[in-house]
Amino acid sequence: MKRFAVGIVTVLSFATAAPAQDALDVARSHREAHGAAILAMFRDLLAIPNYAFDTENIQRNAQTIAAEFEKRGAIMELLTLPRHASVPPLIYGAIDVPGAKRTIGIYVHYDGQPVDESRWTTPPWAPALRTRALGDGGEARPFPGAGEAIDPEWRIYARGAGDDKAPLAALLAALDALRAADIAITSNIRFMFEGEEEVGSLHLREYFAHYGEKFSEVDAWLICDGPVHQSRRPQLVFGVRGVTGLDITVYGATHELHSGHYGNFAPNPAMMLAQLLASMKDEQGNVLVEGYYDTVEPLSERERAALAAAPDIDGQLRREFGLASSEAGNAPYLERLLLPSLNIKGLAGGAAGPQSRNVIPTEATASLDLRLVKGNDPVHMQELVEAHIARQGYFIVREAPDPRTRFAHEKIALVSRRSGYPAARSSMDGPLVEPLRRAAARASGQDVVMMPSLGGSLPLYLFNEMLGTPVIIVPIANHDDNQHAPDENLRIANLWYGIDLYGLILTME
Amino acid sequence: MKRFAVGIVTVLSFATAAPAQDALDVARSHREAHGAAILAMFRDLLAIPNYAFDTENIQRNAQTIAAEFEKRGAIMELLTLPRHASVPPLIYGAIDVPGAKRTIGIYVHYDGQPVDESRWTTPPWAPALRTRALGDGGEARPFPGAGEAIDPEWRIYARGAGDDKAPLAALLAALDALRAADIAITSNIRFMFEGEEEVGSLHLREYFAHYGEKFSEVDAWLICDGPVHQSRRPQLVFGVRGVTGLDITVYGATHELHSGHYGNFAPNPAMMLAQLLASMKDEQGNVLVEGYYDTVEPLSERERAALAAAPDIDGQLRREFGLASSEAGNAPYLERLLLPSLNIKGLAGGAAGPQSRNVIPTEATASLDLRLVKGNDPVHMQELVEAHIARQGYFIVREAPDPRTRFAHEKIALVSRRSGYPAARSSMDGPLVEPLRRAAARASGQDVVMMPSLGGSLPLYLFNEMLGTPVIIVPIANHDDNQHAPDENLRIANLWYGIDLYGLILTME
Repeated sequence: MKRFAVGIVTVLSFATAAPAQDALDVARSHREAHGAAILAMFRDLLAIPNYAFDTENIQRNAQTIAAEFEKRGAIMELLTLPRHASVPPLIYGAIDVPGAKRTIGIYVHYDGQPVDESRWTTPPWAPALRTRALGDGGEARPFPGAGEAIDPEWRIYARGAGDDKAPLAALLAALDALRAADIAITSNIRFMFEGEEEVGSLHLREYFAHYGEKFSEVDAWLICDGPVHQSRRPQLVFGVRGVTGLDITVYGATHELHSGHYGNFAPNPAMMLAQLLASMKDEQGNVLVEGYYDTVEPLSERERAALAAAPDIDGQLRREFGLASSEAGNAPYLERLLLPSLNIKGLAGGAAGPQSRNVIPTEATASLDLRLVKGNDPVHMQELVEAHIARQGYFIVREAPDPRTRFAHEKIALVSRRSGYPAARSSMDGPLVEPLRRAAARASGQDVVMMPSLGGSLPLYLFNEMLGTPVIIVPIANHDDNQHAPDENLRIANLWYGIDLYGLILTME
Repeated sequence: MKRFAVGIVTVLSFATAAPAQDALDVARSHREAHGAAILAMFRDLLAIPNYAFDTENIQRNAQTIAAEFEKRGAIMELLTLPRHASVPPLIYGAIDVPGAKRTIGIYVHYDGQPVDESRWTTPPWAPALRTRALGDGGEARPFPGAGEAIDPEWRIYARGAGDDKAPLAALLAALDALRAADIAITSNIRFMFEGEEEVGSLHLREYFAHYGEKFSEVDAWLICDGPVHQSRRPQLVFGVRGVTGLDITVYGATHELHSGHYGNFAPNPAMMLAQLLASMKDEQGNVLVEGYYDTVEPLSERERAALAAAPDIDGQLRREFGLASSEAGNAPYLERLLLPSLNIKGLAGGAAGPQSRNVIPTEATASLDLRLVKGNDPVHMQELVEAHIARQGYFIVREAPDPRTRFAHEKIALVSRRSGYPAARSSMDGPLVEPLRRAAARASGQDVVMMPSLGGSLPLYLFNEMLGTPVIIVPIANHDDNQHAPDENLRIANLWYGIDLYGLILTME
């Protein structure tokens, strides 16, 4: 702690001569000299399984992460909730700099999406280094030894590599770099590392209610999550889509029926589900649920201008995804992200493919996620979808219907609402916006894309509503990191960018 | 063999006095005296796993069954095909009776549908006895000891119990009963026990081509498969639906995408599949595929009359299945079975329910089975469905498309045609029809339902086309035996009916 206090004086005394060049140089030479050690540290962090409901391992993550930041001079604390032993701890950290003019909050989440190990090329928690992306013919190679040259196009494959342990590794390396060169941090820092973001931030609200004061003096939270722009240019993002979801199960006969004896007599729930889902969107991808677009809040002029200035990557995305066309007749990607979505995450009924049998299934299920934009209330949007289901003739139930209920209603839908939260958008005029933009531009050597909103979801509305603090998303991961999917990865160049960027942010004037 | 030859003389000498009463009495008193032993024999037969592709066990089934019939005086042979070592043997058997006026063929299949063990209450190949059906609160109970009273409402749960090992057990018991009482068999008998009916009788055609002569002198084949009428009345059935199928896979992006970042930009294949399937049937269950009903051959007057005389069980079925209504606005069940069906056996895309993740899946698959009626050609019906898919804008491929193909076509469907065969219907005027009707009526004490066609499928067209022999289906299983589904079972009363019926058939004048 003392070291930082001393360091700041040093930096300030050179402020006019070389504003922050030192921090970038220092970060770069540090990662060039210690690249192998940084990758080894990242690998060790990724090797700890991090599904939020895997209580033992999520605790190991929290303890390991807190210990690493403590080693580097931060005061760390694992916050817990009374009578919630299995809730992942919220990691709190503080670095105080006497005389600092501001306090910057840095948010990262250390949990990852659940995995289906059978679909990973290498096991999700056995971090593997490859010479390029798997899809580009990347081959496995050992982690480098000390001093060995590191190709920035290498990728580390592991759950959490991109989403969202990369910022933790980059922060730790940046702290090391500044400390080794005696460069002072210029702002007070508050860390908030969440352990259940990927399961919907189930307790962030309670954590804020309990521990809000610890976070109250923060001027702005930097949300270190998500990918950089698809053009590989850096970006700052001022909002996110909200999210909620519904599981829908529809029913046929109470037991599986032989499709010969009863095919085209007994209704088929897989067909019923197909018809119900088909009624929700047109062929162009427009949602047909009544009122679905009615509450969308229009963009401001500044937001529109920022969108217009953003690079057009639609063609690139389609090529990358192997898509001949995208929804709504190739409507602009950025416009689509500012509309609420209705996405089928999965559907299942009976068995398809080689395991299929000659039966009429008893039920069929679809899981939907609804991405929300500013103006959409999650519960209201769920209600709109339910009203649509009811208008298709369905009797809606909250528990699996008993035989009497099934016999009484032609069409029954069990609708399970998932929790969720609204979208958020912060102002693009805050005092930190321009310094951050400059830092990102210098770290990357490129123009920064300024985005009103990300397509993905984070519980940023809680920062606004409960902590009264604006948020700015400062992503570092590559956009093609397969986040949420098998073979998640981080491109080494993006880790390097993160280290450089945090070096600059921690030393901003 | 000698014993039967002697026996027939005995029977003939009493023919006018007591035509066949003896055989029924004998069958009944035999099963009353030896019920426990019959159940134990059936249990042992069911304990051998009988999925056609489980080569080792299917061979054990064939050898065990052949040995049991050999013990009872039949000449048995396991027919095989050259260079087809893993094809289940076709079991051939013969009982010759000097002076017999006819030869009756008896067909049974000894293989069963594949199982998903996790969905069975007790393991599929560990036969379990219950006091009633599971759905009626049936409780597990031990198999009875010798002499213990046996409730005919008990059920045996095991794969193959109803479909289709029950006729084997009933035949063995009937042979024992006749033999013990020195009652002669009156017809030459040919057995044909198939080992791959449930996977589509893949080699029956080849078996007939190789071994047709062994089966050529048969006057009529009794197809011992399928359930009795849903009213529990016995039935004789003169036809079956044909069957074929299609697997359809549609494609989105080449890899799973984060549903936040790309939801409502990248097309969702689960939604595409829902829309495609929904286009195939209307809300009433009528198939919308162009030409689907055009080739249906109309019923004869006699067939119409038989249908009109059959009991109306539609309401009973709906109650039993927990259905408030059935397809086409509660159209008569028997009418529906005389139309081709289009049934979704299963669909899958992404993960639904608790395992769902926030992604856009890369592909979605549905498996369809098409039940065919007389007049429908299987390949033609598949072509109609494919033409429908193409009319929805799909580019049809036969192998998983490469990225270049995916990038070139907005909508791609991989269509895999399953093999199949046409429907069949035999005349209701053959010389054996009336004797069989009388036997079934006497064995059951009820009027016999005469059905032009079953809903299910069997490769009966091969018997007509390759062996030139009419077929009559003589079912014994209960209609609620969960055939093809988990918890398949046989009601003991139906086993008893089978023993009595075969006793009468084997001694028909």
